[in-house]
This record gives sequence, C-alpha cells and structure tokens, in this order.
Amino acid sequence: MIVDYALYQNGHRFSEPTNLGELISMARTEGGFVWLGLAEPTEAEFEKIAKDFQFHPLAVEDAIGAHQRPKFEEFPDVSVAVLKTAFYEEEGSLISTGEILCFIGDYFIVVVRHGNGAPLANTRHYLEGYPEQLAKGPYAVLHAILDHVIDCYIDISVELENDVNQAEQKVFGAERVSASQEIYLLKREVIEFRHAIDPLLSPLQQLASIGAKNVPAELTPFFRDTLDHLARASDAAAGLDSLLSSALQAEIAQVQLQQNEDMRKITAYVALASVPTMVAGIYGMNFDTMPELRWKYGYPMVVGGLLIISGYLYRKFKKSGWL
Amino acid sequence: MIVDYALYQNGHRFSEPTNLGELISMARTEGGFVWLGLAEPTEAEFEKIAKDFQFHPLAVEDAIGAHQRPKFEEFPDVSVAVLKTAFYEEEGSLISTGEILCFIGDYFIVVVRHGNGAPLANTRHYLEGYPEQLAKGPYAVLHAILDHVIDCYIDISVELENDVNQAEQKVFGAERVSASQEIYLLKREVIEFRHAIDPLLSPLQQLASIGAKNVPAELTPFFRDTLDHLARASDAAAGLDSLLSSALQAEIAQVQLQQNEDMRKITAYVALASVPTMVAGIYGMNFDTMPELRWKYGYPMVVGGLLIISGYLYRKFKKSGWL
Amino acid sequence: MIVDYALYQNGHRFSEPTNLGELISMARTEGGFVWLGLAEPTEAEFEKIAKDFQFHPLAVEDAIGAHQRPKFEEFPDVSVAVLKTAFYEEEGSLISTGEILCFIGDYFIVVVRHGNGAPLANTRHYLEGYPEQLAKGPYAVLHAILDHVIDCYIDISVELENDVNQAEQKVFGAERVSASQEIYLLKREVIEFRHAIDPLLSPLQQLASIGAKNVPAELTPFFRDTLDHLARASDAAAGLDSLLSSALQAEIAQVQLQQNEDMRKITAYVALASVPTMVAGIYGMNFDTMPELRWKYGYPMVVGGLLIISGYLYRKFKKSGWL
Amino acid sequence: MIVDYALYQNGHRFSEPTNLGELISMARTEGGFVWLGLAEPTEAEFEKIAKDFQFHPLAVEDAIGAHQRPKFEEFPDVSVAVLKTAFYEEEGSLISTGEILCFIGDYFIVVVRHGNGAPLANTRHYLEGYPEQLAKGPYAVLHAILDHVIDCYIDISVELENDVNQAEQKVFGAERVSASQEIYLLKREVIEFRHAIDPLLSPLQQLASIGAKNVPAELTPFFRDTLDHLARASDAAAGLDSLLSSALQAEIAQVQLQQNEDMRKITAYVALASVPTMVAGIYGMNFDTMPELRWKYGYPMVVGGLLIISGYLYRKFKKSGWL
Amino acid sequence: MIVDYALYQNGHRFSEPTNLGELISMARTEGGFVWLGLAEPTEAEFEKIAKDFQFHPLAVEDAIGAHQRPKFEEFPDVSVAVLKTAFYEEEGSLISTGEILCFIGDYFIVVVRHGNGAPLANTRHYLEGYPEQLAKGPYAVLHAILDHVIDCYIDISVELENDVNQAEQKVFGAERVSASQEIYLLKREVIEFRHAIDPLLSPLQQLASIGAKNVPAELTPFFRDTLDHLARASDAAAGLDSLLSSALQAEIAQVQLQQNEDMRKITAYVALASVPTMVAGIYGMNFDTMPELRWKYGYPMVVGGLLIISGYLYRKFKKSGWL
Repeated sequence: MIVDYALYQNGHRFSEPTNLGELISMARTEGGFVWLGLAEPTEAEFEKIAKDFQFHPLAVEDAIGAHQRPKFEEFPDVSVAVLKTAFYEEEGSLISTGEILCFIGDYFIVVVRHGNGAPLANTRHYLEGYPEQLAKGPYAVLHAILDHVIDCYIDISVELENDVNQAEQKVFGAERVSASQEIYLLKREVIEFRHAIDPLLSPLQQLASIGAKNVPAELTPFFRDTLDHLARASDAAAGLDSLLSSALQAEIAQVQLQQNEDMRKITAYVALASVPTMVAGIYGMNFDTMPELRWKYGYPMVVGGLLIISGYLYRKFKKSGWL
Repeated sequence: MIVDYALYQNGHRFSEPTNLGELISMARTEGGFVWLGLAEPTEAEFEKIAKDFQFHPLAVEDAIGAHQRPKFEEFPDVSVAVLKTAFYEEEGSLISTGEILCFIGDYFIVVVRHGNGAPLANTRHYLEGYPEQLAKGPYAVLHAILDHVIDCYIDISVELENDVNQAEQKVFGAERVSASQEIYLLKREVIEFRHAIDPLLSPLQQLASIGAKNVPAELTPFFRDTLDHLARASDAAAGLDSLLSSALQAEIAQVQLQQNEDMRKITAYVALASVPTMVAGIYGMNFDTMPELRWKYGYPMVVGGLLIISGYLYRKFKKSGWL
Repeated sequence: MIVDYALYQNGHRFSEPTNLGELISMARTEGGFVWLGLAEPTEAEFEKIAKDFQFHPLAVEDAIGAHQRPKFEEFPDVSVAVLKTAFYEEEGSLISTGEILCFIGDYFIVVVRHGNGAPLANTRHYLEGYPEQLAKGPYAVLHAILDHVIDCYIDISVELENDVNQAEQKVFGAERVSASQEIYLLKREVIEFRHAIDPLLSPLQQLASIGAKNVPAELTPFFRDTLDHLARASDAAAGLDSLLSSALQAEIAQVQLQQNEDMRKITAYVALASVPTMVAGIYGMNFDTMPELRWKYGYPMVVGGLLIISGYLYRKFKKSGWL
Repeated sequence: MIVDYALYQNGHRFSEPTNLGELISMARTEGGFVWLGLAEPTEAEFEKIAKDFQFHPLAVEDAIGAHQRPKFEEFPDVSVAVLKTAFYEEEGSLISTGEILCFIGDYFIVVVRHGNGAPLANTRHYLEGYPEQLAKGPYAVLHAILDHVIDCYIDISVELENDVNQAEQKVFGAERVSASQEIYLLKREVIEFRHAIDPLLSPLQQLASIGAKNVPAELTPFFRDTLDHLARASDAAAGLDSLLSSALQAEIAQVQLQQNEDMRKITAYVALASVPTMVAGIYGMNFDTMPELRWKYGYPMVVGGLLIISGYLYRKFKKSGWL
Repeated sequence: MIVDYALYQNGHRFSEPTNLGELISMARTEGGFVWLGLAEPTEAEFEKIAKDFQFHPLAVEDAIGAHQRPKFEEFPDVSVAVLKTAFYEEEGSLISTGEILCFIGDYFIVVVRHGNGAPLANTRHYLEGYPEQLAKGPYAVLHAILDHVIDCYIDISVELENDVNQAEQKVFGAERVSASQEIYLLKREVIEFRHAIDPLLSPLQQLASIGAKNVPAELTPFFRDTLDHLARASDAAAGLDSLLSSALQAEIAQVQLQQNEDMRKITAYVALASVPTMVAGIYGMNFDTMPELRWKYGYPMVVGGLLIISGYLYRKFKKSGWL
C-alpha cells in the first residue's frame, strides 16, 4: 500500500504532478529527490516500484520477505537500510517489533514499513517543517527515520527499567510472591531487545564516520548524534541484562531465606507441642505406684506447670525470632 | 558414489558427452564448468576424481576423513569450503550433523556430501531453472549450497526456540515436573549448534567482502545476503544460550519455591495434629482428681472443642496459603 | 545562569571589560581565551551564548537536553566534551550523577553544568593560581575539569569498596541477617557507575594519544595521567562487579548453611522428644498383665531411665553440634 | 639424553658419519638438515649442543628450565617452538602434561622432550617413510611434531567429552550420588587443558599465515590444516567448559528436587502417623462417660476405621507421588 | 631515603666519586649510566633528585603520590615504568602490594620503591656479577627488576593455587565445615592480584616488540621472555578466578547434599518413632472389650512385635542410606 509520496527540491514539497513516474524523471533531471512511503506492500506492488527505481534483485527480495537483521548495505545505485522498530505494549509488558526498510539512491528514498511501525507520517510532517534539513537530501530522511526509531528504543529501555524495578520490589518485598518467572521473562525481553538494536550499532558507526560514502558531510554529526542515542539504549539494555542475572540469584537467596523462617517455625512448633505431649504421656502410664497421681492438686499442678513451660518457650521463641 | 554431474555453459546444462573426463576437458577449453556431486565417496573413488581435477593432497585428505571444522580455504588451483549440515530430528529433539565439502576451481565444482546431507539435488534443480544465476560460474553453485545449508540453520534455531518455550512452560507450569535435565540437554544442543555454525561466520565474511579473490563481483551481494542469514541464526543461538542459563537458575528458584510450599504444609500438619494429640494426652492422664473426667458431658465437650480448634486452625492455614 | 567568566591571556585573568561580547572579540584578535561557566542554563540563555560563540546546532541541542553519554566530539570550529559527574551520598549509599558539558574552540571554553555538579569554582581558583598551566590554553581547562571529575570517580570507587566490605561482613557475620538485597543494590550501583565512567575511556584515550588534533603536545602527558586515573577507577569498578556476583552466591551458600543447622536442630528435637513419648505410651497400655506396672519402683525406674537416655542423647547431640 | 640424530638430504636419512659435529658441518656446507632428538637433557649435555648449534642464551635457558608457555619465538639464527604435550590417564581421568621444545635453524632442528612426551620416534619413522615431505626441510619436521601433539589434544577432548557424559548420567540418573565433585574436577581439568592448548593458537596462526618468515610456502597449507585441528580441540574444550558450568547448576537443581521428594515423604508420614495416634489418644482419655468405649464392637470399629483412613491416605499419597 | 647509587660503564661499577652530581655529569660526558635506588623518598628528597635528572613534572608527581596503575610511559627525556610488587603473607594468606617506579633516561635509571618492596639490592648484586648484561644500559636494569617482580607474581600464583586446593578439600571433604567464606576471600585475592598484574601486559608487550623505541635490540628477547612469564602468571590467575566461581557453586551443591542427608534422617526418625507410639496409643485406649488386653502374653507379644518392626525398619533405613 502506498502511503504517501512527493518530490522534494531544496527542502520543499512538490506533490504535482501526481504521477510517480513523472516525479521520478523530474527528480532525475531537475535535481531533488522523491520520497515514497509504502506500508506492507504486496509482491506485485513492490516489484513495480522496484522496476521504476531499478533496484538490485536481492534488495527486492529483502523488502518482501521481512525478518531481516538490522543492517546498512550498499548495492550498486541503491543502498538499503533495515531497521527493527520496537514498541512496548503496556499490557503484558511485551515488546513487539516491526521492520522498516529504506532504499536510498541519488534521487529517491523509498521507505517500506512491515508490522505496526512507528507513525512515519509524523516524521514526514516534522521534516517538511524543517526545509534546511530536508534540503540535505535523502540521507536526511534516513537520519530522521533512524532518530525516530531509536527514540522508541530509548523509551523501551526506560520501560524495561521500570519493569526491572517492579520485579525487584517483588523479590525483596514482604509478600510471599515468586518473582522468578517475571525476572526470567524480562530477561527474555531484554535479550530480544538487544538482538533488535545491537546489530544496528556497526552500520550506524559506518554512516556516522567522517567520509562515509554517499552521506553528505554536513549530515555526519547528525548520524553521530543518533549513534550516541543508540549506544545509550544499548548500554542500558546491557546493564539490565546483567542486573537481571543478579536479580535471579537474589530471588534464590530470598526464597531460601523464607524457607529458613518456615523451618525455624516448625522447629519451634515441634518443641512447643512435644513437651506437654510427653508429660501427659508420662502421667498416663498405668504404674500402680505413681504418688503424684494420688495428690489432690496433682492434676492442676501438672497442667499449670505445662502452661508455664509452654508460655516460657513461646516467649523465648518469639523473642529470638523463631515464631 | 557419484550422484550427478554435468557441464554448464552460460547457465545451461550439457550432460553429453557422458564421460566425465571429456566434460572436464570441454570445460577447460570451451569455458563453462563441470558440477560433480558425490555422496560419501570411497577413498579409491575420490582419489580418482582428485587426480582428474588435480586437487592439492591436503584437500584430498580432508574429503575422505570428514570431521572438519567449517572453513573456506584456498589452495593453489582449488578452493575448499567445508560446511556442517544440521538437521533437527523431531523425535528426541536432537540435532544431527553431516558435512558438505565443495572443491571449487576455475572450471569445476565438486560437491562431496558426508552423513545425511541436505538433498542437494533440489539445489541443482533450482539452479538449473535459474540460468542467469548459474551463468555466474561455480561460486554461484557454492552460494546456492550455502544458502540451502544456512536456511536449515535458521529452521533449527526456530525449532530450538520452540524447545526452549516448552522447557519454560515446564519450569513455570503448575505441574511438578523437573525441567533441569531438559534445559541442560537443550543447552548442550545449543552449544553444539553454535560450534557447527559460528566458525562459518569468518570465512563467509571473507567471501562476502568486496574484492574477494576468485568470487565474481556480481556474486558479492548474494554472499552478503547469506552472511546476513547466518548472522541471524548465530544471534538467535547466542540468545538461547544465555536464556537457558537463566532458565536453569529460574528452575532452581521454582524448585525451591515448591519446597517452601511443602515445608509450610508440614508445619501446618504438625500444628493441626499436635493440638488434639496433646489434649487427648492430658485427659488420658491417670490423676485421681481430674474433675472434668467426671462431668457428664466432659467427653463431648472436649471432642467438640478439639473439632472447633482444628477447624479454626484449618481455615486459618487455608486462608494464609499454608495448606 | 552564568556563574563566572573571564579572559585569560598567558595564564592571567582579565575580568575587564565586563562585557562578554567584548571579551570574546578581544580573545579572537589579541589571543588568549575566554572561560565561561554556566549552571543549568535556560534555553534562551544558552541560545544567546551559542550565537555569540557560533556553536554547531547539534551541540546546542545537547547542552540543553542533558542525559548524554560521556563523549568527546569534534564539530567544525567547536569540540564538545560530555562528562558524567558522580557523587556518593553517604546517606542511603546512593550515587547521584550530574553532567558537565565543555564547548572548546580556539579562543574559548564554555563549561555547562547540569545537576549537582562538582564545585567547578575550585577548579577555576586552582588553575588561576597555576598560570603556566593555564597558559596552555582551553584544553588545560578541560584537563583540570576532567581531573576533578575523575578524582570524584576514584572517591566513589573507594566508597563502593567500603560498602562491599560491609556487605561481606553481613554475609559471613554471626548475625542472622539477609545481605542479598544489600548486595543486589550494590551491584546495581556498580553497574550504573560503570555505565557513567566506562564510555569516557575511549574519548580520553583519543585526547591522550600523541598527536591528538587541537590538543597542544605539552598537554598530552597530562591527559595520559588522567586517563590512567580513569582506568584505575574503571578497573576497581569491574573488580567489584565480579566480586558482588560471587558475594551473592556466597550468600546463598551461607543461608543454606544456616538452614542445615536448623534442620539438624529439628532432627535432634524429634529424637529427644520421641523416646520418652514412646516409652510413656507403652506403659500407658491397658494390658492386664504388665508386670513392670506392679513393681513398687517401676515408675521412678522408668522416669529415671528416660532422664538418663534423654540426658545422654542431649549431650551426644550437643557434642556433635546438632543442638 | 640423546635419543637419535641423523642428517636428512632431499628427504633421505644419512646416519653416517656418526659424529654429530661432522654431520652439522656437512649440513652447513652440502645442504640438508640435522634432526637431533633429546629427552630431558642435563644442563651440561644441552649446553654442549647449544654451543655446537650456536643457540641464543635465552633459548638455552628455556630448554633446561621447562614450565614454559606454548609459543613460537624467533631469535637471530634460531626459532624456538614450545609445545605442551598432554596425555589422558585413563585411571583417575587425569591429564598429565609434558613439554616439547623445538630449536629450528636453516640446517637443523633440535627437539627436546620434557616429561612423558609423545613417542616422537614414531614421528621420525613416519616422516622417513615420506621423503617428499621431509625434503621440505626442518619446518616439515616441526609440522609433523605439531600434528602429532595436536592429535593428542583431540583425543583428550574426546576423552573429556566422555567424562562429561558420565557426569551427566550421574546428575540425571536415578541413583542418589553426588556429581558435584566430579563436575568440579572435570571443570578443573578442562581449564588446565585450555591453558595448555589455547596459547598455541596465536603462534600457529603466525606459522600458517601466507608469507610466514622462514616457513617454506609449500608448507603453509599443512600448518593451516594443523591450526584447524587445534581450533577444533580448542572449540570443543570451550564448549565443555561452558557445559560444565550448566551441569553444576543442573546438579544443584537435581539435588534440590530430591530434597523436595524427601520433604513430601516426611509430610506424608507425618499425616499418616498422626491420624491413628490422635484417635487412639482420644479413646485413651479417662472420661467417665464415653459411650463408644462401652460398645461391644467399639474397638474393632475404631481399629477398622483407622485402617480404612490410613489405607485411603496411603493410596492418595501414593497416587499424587508423595510416597 | 637513598639506598645505593653508582656509575656503570661497560658493565662495571664505579662508586667514586661519591658525589651524585659528579657521577651524573661523568655519565653524561663519558658514557655509561647512573643507577640510583631510593626507598620511600620524602617529597623534598625526590624533588632534589628530579631537578638533578631534569624529570618531567608529572613524572615527579607520580613518584611521591604512589597508588599508580602499572604502566610504561614515555615523557620527553625520561621514561617511567610503574610496577606493582606483590607478596604473599603466609599468615592470613594475604597478598600485600607495594610499588616500584623506574625513571629511565639515556644515562641514568632511578628506581623508587614504595611499600615493602622486593629486596632490589639482590638485583643489583646479581647484575653486577653479570657485566655483559649490565653493559646493555639502563634498560637491562629495568629488565632485571621486571624479571624479579614477575617471578614474585609466579610464586604468588602458585601459593594461590595451593589455597584453592585447600578450599577444594574443605568443600568436598567429609567434615562439616563451610568453605564459602574461604572461597569468597580467595576470589577477592585473585581479583586483586589480577588487577595488579594484568595492566602490565600491554606496556610489557610494547617493550618486547621488535623495534621498541629506546630499548636496545639485543634486549628485546629478554623482555619477550619476561612477558612470557607474566602471561603465564596472568593465565594462572584467570584460571583460578574461573575455578573459584565453580567452587562456590560446588559448595552450594555440597551444602545442599548434606541437608538432604539430614532431611532423610528426620524422615527415618519420624518413621521409626511413629510406629511404636501409634501401637502403644491403640493399646492404651479404654474400650471395655479389647480381647488382646486380656491375653496373658499380650504385652510381651506387642512389645516384641514393636521391637521386630523397629529393628526391621532400622535395618532397612540403614541399608538404603537413610540413617
């Protein structure tokens, strides 16, 4: 599905003529570039466009198949950037990922979105209101998209940090709840997240290095800035990864601690109940000669003695934290 | 065992003349290349072929011995690619590996298969229906084989992910089943899988780099694409590896949690049973003067009291999750 | 908020004229450099200054937004250094971080502080009393600030080490206290601390390398010295990180050990109480013919026997450390 | 102790003249090389030889002292290769290591063996039966020795794998045996083994790289092949290392699981025994009015009831896996 | 405090004239070098010497402040080597570290010792008895000091290995002793040790590389040899580090195993004591009609029966390892 397209010259939008082919030939002859946005194109749709822009066949294969690894690859006449878009679904604390592919040539940029991508329309509106940036050519568009996508990464890393905080509170909180599943699933999310973002570091370094082929020199600091944001998200994710491993161990220690408490409670109960049972057993023996049994106040004395002993034990256990 | 062979010129198959030697000399003089497929050749068989194609003696040793590490090595006049083929056996969730060796020269490619290799016949049929690719020479055949083998890797990484999912469900599920053996064996599988695929990354990077010796420039993007797939499988395997370590720790935490529950149950049982036993013991004492024993309704009162206390304790334990 | 500014020529301060614009043009024409200190500037404030010094737009964006990663970046005409300042709050053992940004050009250094930064006024006073260093230009100021910030890192690493020592004493001490939360939170602090300081290693290496662009050769050994301090703090943090993982495992082992002791205590109690209860039960049986019951000293003999057995068991358990 | 020596020219052995000095001067003047084998030479013995061949003093120090790290080092006129030989002692599953030092010059190779080295005599016999290889000079001998030593590594890695398999069976087997010591000792073995073989990777890479100084070009593929074998052994050891860490954790989980079973058994016993004891206690009370006690069939009814309840509980516990 | 100084020319010592200043000017004019040894110099002392030799101000700062990271740094006219000396205190198994700083110029080497350094006097005596080495200039002295310091590292790594062996015996030994604290403290020692020695690897590699600035070519193999020793100590420490992590886990498994045994013992005791208690309870019931109670041999039969059952259970538990 074609979302939007236009010709940009010196940072300004020209939507006329409405025919894509004519726009392309205008861009080729008069300068400027065409920015075409596609959302989950069908094979036929994309092949037509690939023919219009004369893409490399492998680039075409990528655009339809999806499930690529983040990368930036240069084919003759066209460069392809593959980005993973990531979104945090509040409900269920899950990260869902989509994919954005950018095909960049001298006079065009084709942006293909798979999955619930970021609303790239915003990016277009933002850039159209910032003509001096747009005038720097199609790589300025790539930068704006990267910037948008990586901002989402930073949002996610913040959300993940919140989730880790919650898991921590579960681990060390007073309630008897198991946090191990939560920590494990977070670990899993973090690993997935890192796989989505870390492979982008190396191609972005390439784009941000001084003298990167095709990238206008004045855009280099912008890509460096974006790289910096990505590195920050990547650092944060690495930190959470390592932290969750420790959280899992802390959970084991905490669970064990609780078990120790239960264990001490049993010991205390065993001790508390065993004394009266034992004494009662003794006075239940059927010996002919057991003088205490004949005493008038034998019974209340024994029961009273047991109460005193039990009370003493109870307080002692309470004091030393066993009950 | 010779599986199939033919001469390919400009992407088209010539099976005539049927004599291998003549095909080779045709390829050498008229251009094109011979594609020879062997399955678990005997020493004698392979040595004859090695003589026909004039292979380096170390290359020959490799082809018979098997148990190589994945690599791409250039000898004078012949390059050797060693690939590990991997298959997922649904039954038993085991990965079994075979080996494919490709001997590539200017005018030939000899493909040797050890173990239950991928049905390379399909690769041949696929390429024969795609003459413009086949016309790029023997490295196009190598690419097709690599592509096929690496697709299998991706399938396996998906299967392994499913297995990890199942193990997770065992760990966190309600049933009392031990998942540690399953996780451990998966860990083992993943480690083996990584050893099968990771050493291929570096030779494939070499093949995919611009200006790789012998590789036609037009094939470079194809090898890069294949490298990308391999990197994806490798990433996935690394993620599973790390995840399984956490799963093992989560399993420990879960097992311990279950123990805590059992522990609390014991404590509750001890408490429940100890009260009536103790009281009964007391009224079983043989004191002469125990007024309650003389009461008409002493017995039902005591039994009733015990029932009430036990019921109260039972509900209290039930409520606080101890029973 | 502007904190202080002055023109420095040959290491000496000139605060006259008080007008910033005039100072700048003096620096530009007569040599020397302007050192301007800002604390949490408003957007308007900073934009004015950015215009005065003609900063690159991305550099401006950084200075207001904060939450940067430590880095050293060169834009045309201006270089930007981003530093994380870190402070140890004795109370709560927390590390709080601020940010210092330095904009360095041929004839100026603008220092922007976010958060509770280090009292950079001290740095200015220190350098003003050390004119031969100040005469080396704005990079000497950058060095002095770096030195100050990194000295704080070393202080923190020492404080963290003390905290780890305290946690250790909790783990191995005689008291029954859980150290897992403390260790976990320390781990978290250390990870945060490492993320604050480690990214600075690479830009500082760049500044310290012989022949770094813009950095006067005579300052190179100073930057190397600073790098050395940073590397020391980084090493110490890495060591603590690894140590805390082991501490968490040691805590698990210690908690378990305590549980074993409790377990042995239960076993001992069970054994101690079970003997008299059993014997009393036997002599409480109602058989017609139980000769012992008729003996005159049967009762004291049995009670005496039980006391002896219990005493023997008690001493045996005590001896073998079970009670 | 001198084991054997001879002059080799064009791959053929000349043991005459028997005088070592004359052989050396023949090699120096007429071509070919002297291959001298020593086993644990005394200081005096080796110093004489070092003088004959004019070794560098540091090289001499190495040869006597032993306990070197695997390396390949080039001194003027002589290169030294230090190899760790490793053997698997079936009994006790221990790896014992020796050392082989090779001193290689243009016209000689001196091989010094410390510890129970591999029977290098076999290597000599093998090479003497393979003159075209021996004709490639002293580096061909080095290759043959390396090949032999590394084949031993591969054997050991296979043995270690078997040991890991056995430890696994202990961990997950039905018998109650502790596998943690076995796993730990294996871990120790694997770490030692890795320290013996991994440092060899880098010098061997150097020997295997195209254009390595002194190494004849025709030997390069042979060294590459050997490097490949070493990399395989190194990979296998790394895999076992990682696997053993998981095995240790799995052991913890398994031990805990067994404890859970014991715990459940206790709970079941407590429940089973507590019911009849409690009921018997109640009917042992001495109340005057306990109508059941007067019933003719009270006793068999109660005993029967207890049997039924106990049987019911027993079957229930059996069913739910608690007994 | 000045320990010793002398002028060395062609490897021979000249202690006359005794005036340091004159010695220095002799070295400057006539060749040779001055070797000055200082132990914990005061600020005034060192500043005087720094002026005599014209050291770089940063180098001076280092020499007084101590607490440096191991490094080798080249200032104009002077190179500084910082070494950590490490000693193993048998008592308490602690490693204490000192520091040695070497200032090396064309005609001098100044060696400053902080903390309980190695007795460098031995190094001087050793070298004075080895003039051909001493004749190679001040770097030969640096090498001798390095060699001495690194030999101490190797001694320590051996001592640490012994400590690890002892901890192992505690973990797997029959006695009930906790090894977790010992292992943890060893881990700590090893981490500190690694921080003391690993940073030296990179500067030493620099000194050992062919063509290192200032280092005479004939000394290169000596530095390589020293590097080799350091690498060995570093490898050993890394191995111990990894081993101790496993030891901590093995300790957890062992502690748990012991708990399992205690648990089984409880279960056995519960079972043993519950049978007679239950039976006795039943025959203690007060039913009017309990025929067994009337039997003449009822009592001995029951007691005998209980003895048989208890004996049977005891033997069964003993056999299956529960008691």
